[in-house]
Amino acid sequence: MEGVASEAASLAGHLQLGKIIYLYDDNRISIEGSTEIAFTEDRGKRFEAYGWHVQYVPDGLDIEAIDRAIEAAKKDPRPSLIVVRNIIGYGLPTRQGTAKAHGEPPGDKELDAAKVNLGWPVEPRFYIPDEALAVFRQAVTRGAELEAAWQAKFEAYRAEYPELAAELERRLTGKLPQGWAADLAEFPADPKGLASRASSGKVLNAIAEKLPDLVGGSADLAPSTLTWMNCSPAFAPDCREGRNIHFGVREHGMGAITNGIAYHGGIIPFDSTFFVFCDYMRPVLRVAALSHVRRISVFTHDSIGVGEDGPTHQPIEHLAALRAIPNLVDLRPADANEVRQAWIVAIEEQHRPSALVLTRQNLPTLDRTDGAYAPAEGLKYGAYVLKDTGPGKPQIILMASGSEVGLIVEAGRRLAEKGVAVRLVSVPSWQLFDEQDQAYKDSVFPPDVTARIAVEAAVTLGWHKFVGSQGRVLGIDRFGASAPAATVFEKFGLTADNVVKTAEELLY
Amino acid sequence: MEGVASEAASLAGHLQLGKIIYLYDDNRISIEGSTEIAFTEDRGKRFEAYGWHVQYVPDGLDIEAIDRAIEAAKKDPRPSLIVVRNIIGYGLPTRQGTAKAHGEPPGDKELDAAKVNLGWPVEPRFYIPDEALAVFRQAVTRGAELEAAWQAKFEAYRAEYPELAAELERRLTGKLPQGWAADLAEFPADPKGLASRASSGKVLNAIAEKLPDLVGGSADLAPSTLTWMNCSPAFAPDCREGRNIHFGVREHGMGAITNGIAYHGGIIPFDSTFFVFCDYMRPVLRVAALSHVRRISVFTHDSIGVGEDGPTHQPIEHLAALRAIPNLVDLRPADANEVRQAWIVAIEEQHRPSALVLTRQNLPTLDRTDGAYAPAEGLKYGAYVLKDTGPGKPQIILMASGSEVGLIVEAGRRLAEKGVAVRLVSVPSWQLFDEQDQAYKDSVFPPDVTARIAVEAAVTLGWHKFVGSQGRVLGIDRFGASAPAATVFEKFGLTADNVVKTAEELLY
Repeated sequence: MEGVASEAASLAGHLQLGKIIYLYDDNRISIEGSTEIAFTEDRGKRFEAYGWHVQYVPDGLDIEAIDRAIEAAKKDPRPSLIVVRNIIGYGLPTRQGTAKAHGEPPGDKELDAAKVNLGWPVEPRFYIPDEALAVFRQAVTRGAELEAAWQAKFEAYRAEYPELAAELERRLTGKLPQGWAADLAEFPADPKGLASRASSGKVLNAIAEKLPDLVGGSADLAPSTLTWMNCSPAFAPDCREGRNIHFGVREHGMGAITNGIAYHGGIIPFDSTFFVFCDYMRPVLRVAALSHVRRISVFTHDSIGVGEDGPTHQPIEHLAALRAIPNLVDLRPADANEVRQAWIVAIEEQHRPSALVLTRQNLPTLDRTDGAYAPAEGLKYGAYVLKDTGPGKPQIILMASGSEVGLIVEAGRRLAEKGVAVRLVSVPSWQLFDEQDQAYKDSVFPPDVTARIAVEAAVTLGWHKFVGSQGRVLGIDRFGASAPAATVFEKFGLTADNVVKTAEELLY
Repeated sequence: MEGVASEAASLAGHLQLGKIIYLYDDNRISIEGSTEIAFTEDRGKRFEAYGWHVQYVPDGLDIEAIDRAIEAAKKDPRPSLIVVRNIIGYGLPTRQGTAKAHGEPPGDKELDAAKVNLGWPVEPRFYIPDEALAVFRQAVTRGAELEAAWQAKFEAYRAEYPELAAELERRLTGKLPQGWAADLAEFPADPKGLASRASSGKVLNAIAEKLPDLVGGSADLAPSTLTWMNCSPAFAPDCREGRNIHFGVREHGMGAITNGIAYHGGIIPFDSTFFVFCDYMRPVLRVAALSHVRRISVFTHDSIGVGEDGPTHQPIEHLAALRAIPNLVDLRPADANEVRQAWIVAIEEQHRPSALVLTRQNLPTLDRTDGAYAPAEGLKYGAYVLKDTGPGKPQIILMASGSEVGLIVEAGRRLAEKGVAVRLVSVPSWQLFDEQDQAYKDSVFPPDVTARIAVEAAVTLGWHKFVGSQGRVLGIDRFGASAPAATVFEKFGLTADNVVKTAEELLY
């Protein structure tokens, strides 16, 4: 019934993923009662429409019929659905075939009677017939044999192709080649700069050349999210070596498939869509974070900066919502060199998911040379001092993430001209900052500097932890508005002027 | 392609919603290119499997064929899909039938050539042929005629049935009967209490008797979310008067359908599922909040309180993520009488969505009589003083929402015994509290009382705004764990003992 299953099955049919076999336990019962109350579509016909091979086993107790169906499914080049008609709670005298068999423990009376019905002894409570146990135990020897055969094959392969075998082992263990990121080009300072989706596209393509492990795609938005890898074709029925995946307009399915690839191992998968559509993917981001798998999301068009597309397409609550997920590395880089670092962090996070949150609009590339601004490597600490404008202790701390860093840089310049000692802090990742020790945190945000302003084109939720009781948060606690991006930023008070004004209110 | 469309179409077929007609603009183009790259399923056959009436119009320029198909669709008792083969960007010399016609402005050269191709004048730029304009303008007179006919019919109805006509007008304008909530029963104090899902079920059923406007259901979880209205049968093909909807295991579709009912008007719709599955519904909650429609979600099983079901089913980040959505009324009531108030608020919020966040486990019903604890009406302010244990200014403020209010009540009692003047604050709704004036906010949280503790079985994100720089937040900044609920609460430090200990650290 769930739509994500429809999305995935449609794509599996399109891609002719013949190894997939679904065993559908068609017991016609859901929690509210018979599936007749809400689910009377012709499921087999639907899967045929997806291009699947569909078989029916009318009696779920007929093990041999199921076995024959599985064998036929293996032979068919299409993905296969085997619809097995079953009876839920089989043998329970009053609950068999009812919703009660789904959601509630049957209790002793029902269980005892079921065992009598099945011709089993009532005791012991947990009874496994010897015949069944013998069948289960075959899996142990069969597994050992299969593993030994695979190992022998692999050792022969290693003898003949030592380098390829080493590369396969590297990939299956999820490790990265030594120094893989060493020669990823940095971006020169540039006041005009480029959109972080654009710098991401360049970095992604550079990484794709170095890491054949990288496989991914977009929910029909690659021309906008700039996630196409030029070194490889698209994955298709006749092109299994393609590393770009056309997921179609199926964000939830995309996210679930990306999780699946990550579970499989040997591949570093990524997916991509507009940031506002990450809402479609929350269940899978949660599962990924809970499951400690490396998978990367590239979310672009990350704020009111999308301008005329208006509030439906302007993320407002999504940064806070993303940061709420435990064990997910949120990354909202401020310029091209932070984008480069964000990709490095995401690739190196071997045991958890990351999400890059990127702009459509241009961002100036800061001058990181000669101590003008601190190196972008600071991104890995989650928050870092970009610059202190004055000697000695700062009077005020301005902090921001992503596109709003350019804004505090400009405000900081103006305040410095007025003689204010300003600290500028880039805060690309709350998750990573949270993991630093207290000494580092206090070095970035000295507790005795209580005049603090956070600026972000999003809901203010959560920033009070950084600015404290005396500070201010300049954000947007409402939905966005449709107008040219600069106008929207101005109307919401996200301007260097307003940061300067707010700073002066705090200071004087 | 989107799964939510599959869910909704499957249910529409099941329910035989024959008024639905989809016109499918089958132009075979998506943003990444031809739909052949990701979407080759047989769409018509899929909709047939859902029980839809499917027709094909091979030429989208054949207006009369489309018209005939619409007439046939109207006559068919099933919902109808009309697959109209179209060419995107028709007439553009190089972009017609390509992805470029979808995502990019064509530019003057393409536009001029298209007009020449179509036999139109190149100027004016915005040109509407007189013939087309005349057809469009027919809608004005036809609309006026239809409206006048409806009004005449309604006035005749009013003359014959004045009370029913008044009731219909009340419902269509979304107003409530005077004093509708006056005699909803309150709950007596009860140390054992009941789960907030259970008190919600009682309140919902009492309201359903009073408000025939109330229509809703669950994503196959009504026996667990306790949202069944006993006064009415299920909505079904042969029972259009049923007010309970079996949505099936389709949260996203459920949410979208609930939005649709709210847009339609005349009905107060609700939906329901486990809180952890609200992730599936985020896109529709956002649209509802953005669109200012009244619709109510009942989310139960709201924390680690679900115990053995484990981290996949224990919401952790969902409260913060819900609170991040602007214009959505978050309601996490602390006991049965707050549940009653939460339902009243949700029903009375005529122009925005609400979400009730409820427990599976029992919660004590506080004694609101004789000034023991403040009346539950305080819920409507978002946060309110439940009790001051001492005379004079409180030394410390303990705050919590939902199930954790019982915890601060116990901790407050123990601290009071030790002579500490404690203020207990219930915080059922951040959205509502945010809307109070500064004087009220300061009356609940006096700025000079800086020793503050917030307790919530969820991520701490956002609570620092309430506790300030000197306060503490007791929450869970990781995923949950599988064990009996009491054990999980204890392991995460969510106990009265730990609140007392933390309070003493802050005070001494």
